[in-house]
Amino acid sequence: MSLKSFFEPSSVAVIGASREPGKLGHEVFKNIIDAGYKGKIYPINPKAPDVLGVKCYPSIKDVPEEVELAVIIVPARFVPSVISDCGGKGVKAAVVISGGFGETGPAGAELERQLVEAARKAGIRVVGPNCQGVNSTSAGLCASWPLVKTKGPISVISQSGTVLAAIACWAEEEKVGVDKIVALGNKCDVDETELLDYFSNEPTTKVIALYIEGVRDGRKFFRVARAAAEKKPIVVLKSGKTAKGAKAVASHTRSLAGKDAIFDSVFKQVGIQRASSVEELYDFCKAFAGLPTPSGNNVAIITSSGGSGILALDASEELGMNVPDLPAEVRERLKEKLPPECILRNPLDLTGSATAQMYDETLNILNESGEIDAFVVIVGDPMPGISEVISKHVSRGRTIVPVMLGGGKAEAEEKTKLANAGIPLYSDPIRGVRALAACVRRAQWLASSNKFGNV
Amino acid sequence: MSLKSFFEPSSVAVIGASREPGKLGHEVFKNIIDAGYKGKIYPINPKAPDVLGVKCYPSIKDVPEEVELAVIIVPARFVPSVISDCGGKGVKAAVVISGGFGETGPAGAELERQLVEAARKAGIRVVGPNCQGVNSTSAGLCASWPLVKTKGPISVISQSGTVLAAIACWAEEEKVGVDKIVALGNKCDVDETELLDYFSNEPTTKVIALYIEGVRDGRKFFRVARAAAEKKPIVVLKSGKTAKGAKAVASHTRSLAGKDAIFDSVFKQVGIQRASSVEELYDFCKAFAGLPTPSGNNVAIITSSGGSGILALDASEELGMNVPDLPAEVRERLKEKLPPECILRNPLDLTGSATAQMYDETLNILNESGEIDAFVVIVGDPMPGISEVISKHVSRGRTIVPVMLGGGKAEAEEKTKLANAGIPLYSDPIRGVRALAACVRRAQWLASSNKFGNV
Repeated sequence: MSLKSFFEPSSVAVIGASREPGKLGHEVFKNIIDAGYKGKIYPINPKAPDVLGVKCYPSIKDVPEEVELAVIIVPARFVPSVISDCGGKGVKAAVVISGGFGETGPAGAELERQLVEAARKAGIRVVGPNCQGVNSTSAGLCASWPLVKTKGPISVISQSGTVLAAIACWAEEEKVGVDKIVALGNKCDVDETELLDYFSNEPTTKVIALYIEGVRDGRKFFRVARAAAEKKPIVVLKSGKTAKGAKAVASHTRSLAGKDAIFDSVFKQVGIQRASSVEELYDFCKAFAGLPTPSGNNVAIITSSGGSGILALDASEELGMNVPDLPAEVRERLKEKLPPECILRNPLDLTGSATAQMYDETLNILNESGEIDAFVVIVGDPMPGISEVISKHVSRGRTIVPVMLGGGKAEAEEKTKLANAGIPLYSDPIRGVRALAACVRRAQWLASSNKFGNV
Repeated sequence: MSLKSFFEPSSVAVIGASREPGKLGHEVFKNIIDAGYKGKIYPINPKAPDVLGVKCYPSIKDVPEEVELAVIIVPARFVPSVISDCGGKGVKAAVVISGGFGETGPAGAELERQLVEAARKAGIRVVGPNCQGVNSTSAGLCASWPLVKTKGPISVISQSGTVLAAIACWAEEEKVGVDKIVALGNKCDVDETELLDYFSNEPTTKVIALYIEGVRDGRKFFRVARAAAEKKPIVVLKSGKTAKGAKAVASHTRSLAGKDAIFDSVFKQVGIQRASSVEELYDFCKAFAGLPTPSGNNVAIITSSGGSGILALDASEELGMNVPDLPAEVRERLKEKLPPECILRNPLDLTGSATAQMYDETLNILNESGEIDAFVVIVGDPMPGISEVISKHVSRGRTIVPVMLGGGKAEAEEKTKLANAGIPLYSDPIRGVRALAACVRRAQWLASSNKFGNV
């Protein structure tokens, strides 16, 4: 069965919806309403006539119509029977937020077994239990917390609700937005592999972020990932790298962290980009979402800050990109257009007298030279008009990573304009270069994968 | 001569002050006024009767009194004679913001030579030329840009104006604040070594940040740094790491980047903490500024987010810290105070049902155990009251790195309260752990340095 009912249900029952602010059953119900969900919504609570003004039913069995998705936030011991009741109402998918299952010990594991059995019998697919829910922004369905509404290109699959929420919050703050996000919890049914496959075929998803501690079936996961990576970029943050980390993973989500070196090498082989922190997971996704794929690894750095340019140069070289010298004829053309204080090397230092127009001329000339595949554009001073220049060149298919820092309050306006144009922005030259390097690595993987065929 | 006249002058002349918004001579003059400088201020401009309502003089020679500091923003060719004029007015220090000197070629180098000669003759110390100025927040003297006023514990010495401004802006945004910041420019006179020595003796400076591309006199720098590091933490970001980076450094500030591996090993030897990005330079400074020095490298991770806890665990182990198992009697004591769903290991997972009070109890018990030297406290959900708990324990001398993420808008209030208490905060568990590791490395260096004597 398709996972569509989790993300585009025509109706939702929130079982355990509560009138009491601060309780999860209240927050999740409120978030679904506040996110603007357009389908039918049924709060289920035997003790309340209504929740937030929406008519409440004592049990899902009392709902007069069929229901497609159930969001369940009742104590663990009630969940198996609630799932059975859902079956009678035509429910196709259930998000079980409640904890108290396998993660707590043998008694919880038995409850989880009963949950799975009830769901199989009723033909219901399950996300969770013990998870932070699901949010599908295109459906206005925030069955999770905190409230995040901004639609965007990133879909997230996460074994940690907090990592999930952090990515979603940052994407909301920066107006990047998310498409569909899923907290896996104990993954008693739906797992990372199935979601990866589903998101790889979702037209609204441009990039897939994963936080995993292990995978259930390594072979299957990597087979699916390989096929998914041909279609769109996949970025992973994997914990359990150290011996103690692997031990903690086993206790957190009962996953086998596996040998990290093996994961690392297979990630590379199947074209998954690995991030080293939560922020980097987000940084990479942002780059993939907003930038055209570069056609090679020749990078030009254009900067108003000499020091930042050198930091970007060091990082580019260390990450295997090439920062080539500019050919004499290109330098000649630049010399005609730029003031004499500019340093016509790579990094190209427009110095403190830089203007947006100088960036524009430089991008034109370097681009026409055909020598450069991608640009790092560092703006180290207030620079009115720079966002329009960058947007124009990105819209012409050029891969440009903009970095802005040191510009004080004057920077804010240009930042907002870039965000509105859907272009990723970084506040540290090295973070920007790392994100670009991920794009270049993917481009190289795609090229070699096409060349040698899809093994 | 002491460098005090740069940071606490009783009077300032801004030579090249302009009435025209957008021009540097306007922005810098305005920033000095807006920063609340209390001494006498004299705009110098032969074409204006006043600038921003302050009486203007055609030349510094026309100022009726002596002047202590001159900030110079006139075309390079005028600077040597302006410096000579300053000498006649008792000026002790000059910040030369103007570019067009050694960085532009032989003619500029000759002008720079003349500048140095004039300054020596007049007994004037010079910062710059070709620099982004100086900001001394305690004196309300923002002779730089952008405007930054928040007083704080970090002093910054930087060969890049943008790196300087970025640190200052972030410190302002997060209410951390800066003490004294200096852009070195071409460092024709005052250099990183002299400033490092000066700041190491400044009671208002708690931590010193350096961005350097090379040093003028390696032996002297490291001798001074070693002595300074005994007094307070020093964090460095050094570029020119790669061969191309080193070449770019030579062109940017005519520094010799030197062999990076040698720098790296001497940094370690003299107790300087090396950062790998501009953000990390700031992250480390923030930790040193706000946290007591840990007494060892045994770390406890307390979290409401299992996944984030494991990420922090992996990073701690990779960075050479020890995340010890909790002794049975400590687990027993925790068991009495915490709900059964908590996972009483290290990382200690308070789970999604965590409250501020649970963090408080846990910190008390772990601290009394005497097994733990430092704490990473990860808050992965909205958590009212957590900032008070953390502040209380930090004020009792405990080294706690707080990490908050995934809490949406509810997080903002707790973040503000922590900032007001002067406690550093991180939004990514791995960034937080990296900052803590820098504190631990310093503690270990101090211990071994005391043990083996100050070589």
